[in-house]
Amino acid sequence: MPKETITTRALDYNQWYLDIVREADLAEAAEVVRGCIVFKATGYAIWEMMQRELDNRIKATGHENIYFPLLIPKSFIMKEAEHVDGFAPEVAEVTRAGGEELAEPYVIRPTSETIIGYFYSKWVRSYRDLPLLYNQWCNVMRWEMRTRPFLRTAEFLWQEGHTAHVDEAEAEAETLRILFDVYADFAEQVMAVPVIRGLKTEKEKFPGALRSYCIEAMMQDGRALQSGTSHNLGQNFARAFDITFTDQHNTIQHCWTTSWGVSTRLIGALIMTHSDDEGLVLPPRLAPIQVVLVPIYKNEDERAKVMEAVDRLTADWKGRLRFKVDDRDNFTPGYKFNEWELKGVPIRVEVGPKDVEKGSVAVARRDMPGKAGKQFVPQVGLTDYLLTLLEAIQVALFERALAFRSDRTATVTTYDELKAQIERGFALAYWDGTTEDEKRIQDETRATIRCIPLDQSDAPGICVYTGRPTTRQVIFARAY
Amino acid sequence: MPKETITTRALDYNQWYLDIVREADLAEAAEVVRGCIVFKATGYAIWEMMQRELDNRIKATGHENIYFPLLIPKSFIMKEAEHVDGFAPEVAEVTRAGGEELAEPYVIRPTSETIIGYFYSKWVRSYRDLPLLYNQWCNVMRWEMRTRPFLRTAEFLWQEGHTAHVDEAEAEAETLRILFDVYADFAEQVMAVPVIRGLKTEKEKFPGALRSYCIEAMMQDGRALQSGTSHNLGQNFARAFDITFTDQHNTIQHCWTTSWGVSTRLIGALIMTHSDDEGLVLPPRLAPIQVVLVPIYKNEDERAKVMEAVDRLTADWKGRLRFKVDDRDNFTPGYKFNEWELKGVPIRVEVGPKDVEKGSVAVARRDMPGKAGKQFVPQVGLTDYLLTLLEAIQVALFERALAFRSDRTATVTTYDELKAQIERGFALAYWDGTTEDEKRIQDETRATIRCIPLDQSDAPGICVYTGRPTTRQVIFARAY
Repeated sequence: MPKETITTRALDYNQWYLDIVREADLAEAAEVVRGCIVFKATGYAIWEMMQRELDNRIKATGHENIYFPLLIPKSFIMKEAEHVDGFAPEVAEVTRAGGEELAEPYVIRPTSETIIGYFYSKWVRSYRDLPLLYNQWCNVMRWEMRTRPFLRTAEFLWQEGHTAHVDEAEAEAETLRILFDVYADFAEQVMAVPVIRGLKTEKEKFPGALRSYCIEAMMQDGRALQSGTSHNLGQNFARAFDITFTDQHNTIQHCWTTSWGVSTRLIGALIMTHSDDEGLVLPPRLAPIQVVLVPIYKNEDERAKVMEAVDRLTADWKGRLRFKVDDRDNFTPGYKFNEWELKGVPIRVEVGPKDVEKGSVAVARRDMPGKAGKQFVPQVGLTDYLLTLLEAIQVALFERALAFRSDRTATVTTYDELKAQIERGFALAYWDGTTEDEKRIQDETRATIRCIPLDQSDAPGICVYTGRPTTRQVIFARAY
Repeated sequence: MPKETITTRALDYNQWYLDIVREADLAEAAEVVRGCIVFKATGYAIWEMMQRELDNRIKATGHENIYFPLLIPKSFIMKEAEHVDGFAPEVAEVTRAGGEELAEPYVIRPTSETIIGYFYSKWVRSYRDLPLLYNQWCNVMRWEMRTRPFLRTAEFLWQEGHTAHVDEAEAEAETLRILFDVYADFAEQVMAVPVIRGLKTEKEKFPGALRSYCIEAMMQDGRALQSGTSHNLGQNFARAFDITFTDQHNTIQHCWTTSWGVSTRLIGALIMTHSDDEGLVLPPRLAPIQVVLVPIYKNEDERAKVMEAVDRLTADWKGRLRFKVDDRDNFTPGYKFNEWELKGVPIRVEVGPKDVEKGSVAVARRDMPGKAGKQFVPQVGLTDYLLTLLEAIQVALFERALAFRSDRTATVTTYDELKAQIERGFALAYWDGTTEDEKRIQDETRATIRCIPLDQSDAPGICVYTGRPTTRQVIFARAY
């Protein structure tokens, strides 16, 4: 049912987002710590699910976890030329500690290429020491001016992978393996968020990278959200931090390094892809609670009868699905329905005295609010029914998001078409412009080149802006 | 076999500890960040195992995870009188961010009672909102003067639980539930480290607590290591941060709060309880790798034969035990044995051509180095044999540590006896002294009262220091 406490998407998409974050109890602004949030239990549980799925994939691709210090000597940030420009303006600095002024300030890590580069230079001597394949889960801090829960916060949680290799080919293979096998696979299979795998333009790449790859998702307002990035750092950080090795011909060479990360920003992507005007919608593979069972009764007699059935029905659920029996006595069924709708639980099962008599239960799908998603289902075989339904919901959410993206993506051949299309969604366009051209388009339209999709034909075309012939197509969109 | 790179415990226990940390590749001093370490892959994997086991217990006792900001307004630290004295001298301060001086500095959390107190005061209105049962996993920072890997580092990783309750009885029950059902259970059942559950004296309690409880373990040099603390904070933080609720009689009251934590210090406790002069020794329930299988062969022919057997033997290991087949071609079996001994893997299985012929394998226990721990075992039934042996090793490590502690614990009745006993281990003594008496004993002996054990008789005795009659017994020891 519609919620008074949630602004509709049609009315004000930005306010709707903030309302969902508040009403689903995902996070709260930490107004005493500038730009930071408190991750509340429902929000943090989603992050834990994300971590588990990502960590499995990161380990399955041969990486180990490790942990480097929170603080980085300020001088480290200054060592890689592009990196300085990108990060120095937004660091938080520790200048006093233990009651004394520090001779050299530390910065709280905005990302860890520099401090990790320092250690890698100590650890690598020979080609036999390579590759180094490490990842860390941690908090980072960037003093952003305009913040928004999950999407852009001063402190956020993430994983950052950092690897070192003997040559460009191996570094490039690593960068793409993470993009495809870890990030895109996780986004599509677990989050049910379709993503475009692409290369960033020079203007949009990571400060200090040779090439940055990304996955880009489309939100329900047609805007893009960069959901993960994987960078081939070339030899830039290896030169800045002197990460060298002796190769098989006894020659000293600089390593090729990569870095890659996804963050709690993904919670924002999740909300803005699937949720609706009634609250959060979670894909089953990521839902901390997949099924909530609400027993319904009016007196002790009914209670005993209903709870006997509930115990029987849920007996084999443990270990097979993540569930909760909401048997709180101080809330009405209607209040409970509302709360679990807000929190995005994929399936609600209702069991009342009549259901017990009929040998059935009511099953409501969160992704199809109202009557369309509600059915009466036999108690016999219920567990298998629910497991199948969970998978069906997972697929349905992905398909819905994919259809939405297809509907909101169009090929444009003129600058006017581009300007019109970015009001709706993604504009696919031939592109042969310069970084200066990109900046002008951004100034004029607030759209940027989200990426150069990796999956594209070689068919020639005409650049949407310069009119020059080219085979390269890009996606323009406004972005979060 | 003895390792040249490891100083023996008998020669220099402190150096032995540092050698183990280095040789097992657990951590490395991050000399460019004062007092911090890099948690390397082997060390971090142990922390991940600890986190999983602790997190299960924390959730099983009804708590949810949540995440509060890293930074705390400096003024917050000043609000609780004892807390200021305890933590203000050792905080790291952020005074600049985003290129500007901050009007009010932030401190990096040394512990989060204050910032969490601030939010709890917003979240709690009525007794119906209570209890709040939250935990967070995070990094914290205390600018310590003398640091030591895992045991005392400027930045460390931990979990901190923070709960709020309607009255003292409920807060006390929570404090003790954590001490017994989470911390002591984890230490003894998973780490195989026997611990004494006790109450801290006024002198040793947490700054701002009403009562602090702890688990204390004995290291192999007879010194104590505080391995976890659980604090009943009374109404101290509720008063400082105005955490109030309306009770059932419509009266406004202050909450009773608790906090409790264990940290990466536990890795130090683990090392110093079980490890030996040959390297790390890990209890099976905590070992990231429980069994390492080393195939042995001299040529391709033998290799094929051995690897066929290895594949067959390990076919049903997945999901039943955590294992690694070390089939690296560029290292000798001897090198591999040495490496896995250093890293503490509980069981090594060797399979060579003769073993294949005989239908047996060689099994070596890490907790019994040399011939005593090595046996030839039939290939038939090997998986069950290993599972049983892992449990036997788990028990044996606990029993050995318990026997060691018993041997090094003695009741003392005079101050001279106390002084002699703390050279060996724990001194159990009747105690009726003051905080001033405790300080004098510490100055004279470097021993402190580790705790007042909760498990003690009411039998009367004479205070070891004042000569006054009392029924209270305490444990004196030197501590890490």
